[in-house]
Amino acid sequence: MIVLKTNSNLIRSGIAGLFIHVMLAFTSIVAAPNAQELDPLEPEFSNIANGVWKVRIGEPDIFRPSNFRVAPIQHETLDTMPAEQRLPFNLEDFEIKQTARGLLIYLPMIEGEDWYGGGLTLSHFRQTGRRQVLKVTSDPLVADGSSHAPVPFYVSTGGYGFLIDSAREIEICFGGHNRLELDFAASQEAAALGISIDDLYDTRDNPVSEISIMIPRSSGADIYLFAGPTMRDAIQRHILFSGGGTDVPEWGLGVWYRGFTRADAEGIRKLADHLQEDNIPCSVFGLEPGWQERAYSNTLTWSRTRFPDPAGTIADLSDRGYKINLWQHAFIHPDSPLYEPLLDKSGDHKVWRGLVPDLAIPEAHAIFTEHQASLIEMGVSGFKLDECDNSDTKSSPWSWPDHAQFPSGADGEQMHAVYGLLYMRSLQEAMNGQPTFGQVRQASAFCSPLPYVLYSDLYEHESFLRGVGSASISGLLWTPEVRHGGDGDGLVQRMAAMVLAPQFLINAWYCPIPPWHQPDKDKNQAGIMLPDNERIQLTDRVRTIAELRMKFVPYLKKAFVNYAATGIPAFRAPVVDHPEIEAFRDVDDAWLVGDDLYFAPIPAGQSEREILLPPGVWVDYFSGEKISGNQTILRIASNDLPPIFKRFGANVD
Amino acid sequence: MIVLKTNSNLIRSGIAGLFIHVMLAFTSIVAAPNAQELDPLEPEFSNIANGVWKVRIGEPDIFRPSNFRVAPIQHETLDTMPAEQRLPFNLEDFEIKQTARGLLIYLPMIEGEDWYGGGLTLSHFRQTGRRQVLKVTSDPLVADGSSHAPVPFYVSTGGYGFLIDSAREIEICFGGHNRLELDFAASQEAAALGISIDDLYDTRDNPVSEISIMIPRSSGADIYLFAGPTMRDAIQRHILFSGGGTDVPEWGLGVWYRGFTRADAEGIRKLADHLQEDNIPCSVFGLEPGWQERAYSNTLTWSRTRFPDPAGTIADLSDRGYKINLWQHAFIHPDSPLYEPLLDKSGDHKVWRGLVPDLAIPEAHAIFTEHQASLIEMGVSGFKLDECDNSDTKSSPWSWPDHAQFPSGADGEQMHAVYGLLYMRSLQEAMNGQPTFGQVRQASAFCSPLPYVLYSDLYEHESFLRGVGSASISGLLWTPEVRHGGDGDGLVQRMAAMVLAPQFLINAWYCPIPPWHQPDKDKNQAGIMLPDNERIQLTDRVRTIAELRMKFVPYLKKAFVNYAATGIPAFRAPVVDHPEIEAFRDVDDAWLVGDDLYFAPIPAGQSEREILLPPGVWVDYFSGEKISGNQTILRIASNDLPPIFKRFGANVD
Repeated sequence: MIVLKTNSNLIRSGIAGLFIHVMLAFTSIVAAPNAQELDPLEPEFSNIANGVWKVRIGEPDIFRPSNFRVAPIQHETLDTMPAEQRLPFNLEDFEIKQTARGLLIYLPMIEGEDWYGGGLTLSHFRQTGRRQVLKVTSDPLVADGSSHAPVPFYVSTGGYGFLIDSAREIEICFGGHNRLELDFAASQEAAALGISIDDLYDTRDNPVSEISIMIPRSSGADIYLFAGPTMRDAIQRHILFSGGGTDVPEWGLGVWYRGFTRADAEGIRKLADHLQEDNIPCSVFGLEPGWQERAYSNTLTWSRTRFPDPAGTIADLSDRGYKINLWQHAFIHPDSPLYEPLLDKSGDHKVWRGLVPDLAIPEAHAIFTEHQASLIEMGVSGFKLDECDNSDTKSSPWSWPDHAQFPSGADGEQMHAVYGLLYMRSLQEAMNGQPTFGQVRQASAFCSPLPYVLYSDLYEHESFLRGVGSASISGLLWTPEVRHGGDGDGLVQRMAAMVLAPQFLINAWYCPIPPWHQPDKDKNQAGIMLPDNERIQLTDRVRTIAELRMKFVPYLKKAFVNYAATGIPAFRAPVVDHPEIEAFRDVDDAWLVGDDLYFAPIPAGQSEREILLPPGVWVDYFSGEKISGNQTILRIASNDLPPIFKRFGANVD
Repeated sequence: MIVLKTNSNLIRSGIAGLFIHVMLAFTSIVAAPNAQELDPLEPEFSNIANGVWKVRIGEPDIFRPSNFRVAPIQHETLDTMPAEQRLPFNLEDFEIKQTARGLLIYLPMIEGEDWYGGGLTLSHFRQTGRRQVLKVTSDPLVADGSSHAPVPFYVSTGGYGFLIDSAREIEICFGGHNRLELDFAASQEAAALGISIDDLYDTRDNPVSEISIMIPRSSGADIYLFAGPTMRDAIQRHILFSGGGTDVPEWGLGVWYRGFTRADAEGIRKLADHLQEDNIPCSVFGLEPGWQERAYSNTLTWSRTRFPDPAGTIADLSDRGYKINLWQHAFIHPDSPLYEPLLDKSGDHKVWRGLVPDLAIPEAHAIFTEHQASLIEMGVSGFKLDECDNSDTKSSPWSWPDHAQFPSGADGEQMHAVYGLLYMRSLQEAMNGQPTFGQVRQASAFCSPLPYVLYSDLYEHESFLRGVGSASISGLLWTPEVRHGGDGDGLVQRMAAMVLAPQFLINAWYCPIPPWHQPDKDKNQAGIMLPDNERIQLTDRVRTIAELRMKFVPYLKKAFVNYAATGIPAFRAPVVDHPEIEAFRDVDDAWLVGDDLYFAPIPAGQSEREILLPPGVWVDYFSGEKISGNQTILRIASNDLPPIFKRFGANVD
């Protein structure tokens, strides 16, 4: 590989949102010099794919996410993209300091540009002006960067992005830090005295001047740069670099139902009967912890008490046309046959008194994967991988601490950053080429090729909607699953919001009876059914929505095929396609689906919403009304159908 | 000082909540050996006061909170305490590892003991089973250890405590970490399958086995140990070690009113007229940012536009019998006369385009303090020290980053940990012996001798009540200040909850008219008064509560005098006095005041509450009813008066 020492290969100047790029002109092409000859912190550029550069700074950690990539760089597809190689940042743009805290990097920002990414963010979307710490947590209640799936990939509306290949809890700030040496003048005008907290803190004109990146406990890192020319191109290049987008089987796009955790074989049979009697389409039936002998931690073996004949249960569900998905986490209960073999291949802390297999070492990976394969051989089509994230803020934190140690050399912090990736990688290998689609509660960089959606125990609906667009920036999938509805309207509204989501998942794990028989959680658990007329009416409404989803399965499948082929996310916040339009920069509750649909669900509990239509001409999917884009329209929740728009002239049924 | 190498000087064994302590028996008394001769991580014990030990581990950071103590160890008072020296932990109890992350220390826990402390905690109280990161923040929305005032002091119901003298963001966990090597057996009984998230995560029986302490980015620390014999004794010893408890002037215990930030001299005069016309007692009048020429950042000079005659305004308020308190923060605006002198004595990041003076270096401290003294000379009696905490999670984070650097050698993380202490220390020196009482938004270890209450922009009332008890464990003061009430009942209920709080503060900084003229914030800001009859009625209710507070001033003053004399907090969660009674361990919404009063306010919006009375015999302060303690009683919000109980036989008016 040729290492390019770049100098002045780009003039990057900004005038209020305008970007002037000049063609890349290599001023020197030199062979890689000896490390000794270089300032160890001088970044070393190499062009590793079309529009993708690696910048090596110092001595990167040995344990890093790229070690665990599941698919190679998709050079062939990258080569179909614009070849014009515009470097997002110059060598001189990198200001680097090795500090006692870790590696500190400053990069310039340009006035008017906005930054997005950081993986799944549920509390916010736009990153400009924010300070984030990329910490894995199961409880991302505040907009501090903690998330089920933090990804140190960021992309600018200016049409370029970067990925930091580090498993550390990176601290990153897009403006708002005001270094003394940069000597910004105070604004000459005295601001009006604030009379609200927002006034005081949100409207002060902090200069948005530069990006600061602190990679703690590290003395180096590889940073990958992705060219555009557009924001979407940069996202696409990052995904292709990461191994490409995922495809999923058509059955995975149908309706999922996860059954009551305490149900035994007979209980599961009854739930399946309900689905069929109610004529609710279902493609995948999920079993929750109760399928196992011990759960929390896991044996990863069938409970012979609740499921005396697992093969019979699987056969019954398969005969009904359902694929079977099994819940699990990776923490190995002392009663599991995996316990002894994994004992010396696990971290030095237990979780729920179970082992944490070090899936970064081949021996643990092999033992774990082989056992998973035995479950698949029984006829299981996929898995829900729970609790591979982290827990700190609960009254009883359950995961391993950041200072834990693993045989692979990773500490707890690093292992948290990639445990979902390692876990999915194992299951993917166990599937042995068989198509699958599952759920996972932690993801990271290099996860785009993996057919899993993220989910959360948080249940606030606006956050749930926000996740679809925010996750997709980093090549991840998220779905606003439904558990209970509160009432019938809430249930239907939450289901309607999944009609064009990556997965249509009714996660009734704590509901003894289907939520359309009783949408109130407590009453459901008490076994109190709705009165017959209400139940029948609600069942009809739920069926209508589920059937609407089914109608879109071919379209969604096509969108996924396209995602896998091109690396362009199938689900996209509108800013991705229209970064030049300011008004889209905070739209985090609507998304584009494939090429031709725009989906703007009405959040649960709300009776109407405003919808800013993307540019172009659109057609209301249900009424057929033709509407000019680039305008805001109002939609009232007048029936159960969610607002869907198709591009005028597009061929969507 | 004699360094004691302790071995087996304590047998610490636990049987379900029972503690067996044996007398300290020094097995060896040796002079301090050379560092070279020791395992650098072997803790070195020294007895530094009666029932207080210092344990030095490795090489502590140079920059640490104890550098900035404002008062010496109160040996004289400590010597009046039980001399029986029982070491909370043995030398062998300390398991210490130097890791790449920092210094890791394990200490044993005993079944049945509960831990408290960590400074101000608003989201939770009991620390047992929890994981915390002691990070300074202005937005402590989750129970993760972040707080306006984290203090690494913890105390056990077993009757001992410890303080870590570090300005790092310590990660600490009281149980819940389950090290593999400790080999806890899995429970033999299979737990029932959880059907709620609480079931899943909160009831799993994580072994509560040991305390883990990670001091990041450090290779050593001093840990101070405090003996009991009771929990309250350990708290008291920590406070006496820290310089003792604070006394406050009697006027500071009266009613405080902070005026509208946009009010000019005339506006302030009118507000003072309102207070007098309405016959609302007031002891302190606070001016908000508007008194300054520039605010956000600060000039720390009077606005000649709004206050052409500051001395006149001060004289007017003084003549009415009000003490004057000025809002400020420490960030120095370029227009301030302090800017140039402090330019090379400040951190390398600005805040709101203002300098952050490094108050840890004598030169900056002197310049800053001298200027503050000039304000005091004009007749100001105290200050509100705002925004000395930190901001990360807002959409526009405003404080310096953790990776900032200061001339004193501190990085941003360390400076955040002690900035409140440094700031108060400067003001205390500027007061030059004159009694004061103020507000501060950040505090740390070694702050107990400083006459300031903590406050927050968060406004959730149950969190506000929780702060009184949680802060007091670490020798800090907090008050559930009132800003607006929503409605009249809310206003009165919030005021009633301050009748026996450390400070009675009506912080009407964003209210153009007094909140009893309009308790709804938006209407208040729009200048819409309540209808006359409602306003008169509400004013009467507010006056009744304010007068009730005034009635308690002598009692409260006595409680503070006692606090200053003994180090026993004047306000205490009941667990402090009754750690042996399980039922008190989660009581975080009621507190003991001095020796003889128990205060259990009804949270805003609630119509009743249960009150667990401490042991003994109590008398309902208002009805005179005699009630046996150690039982739960119900109090209905039938009038505006908060539930107050006095100890039977005590002499309280």
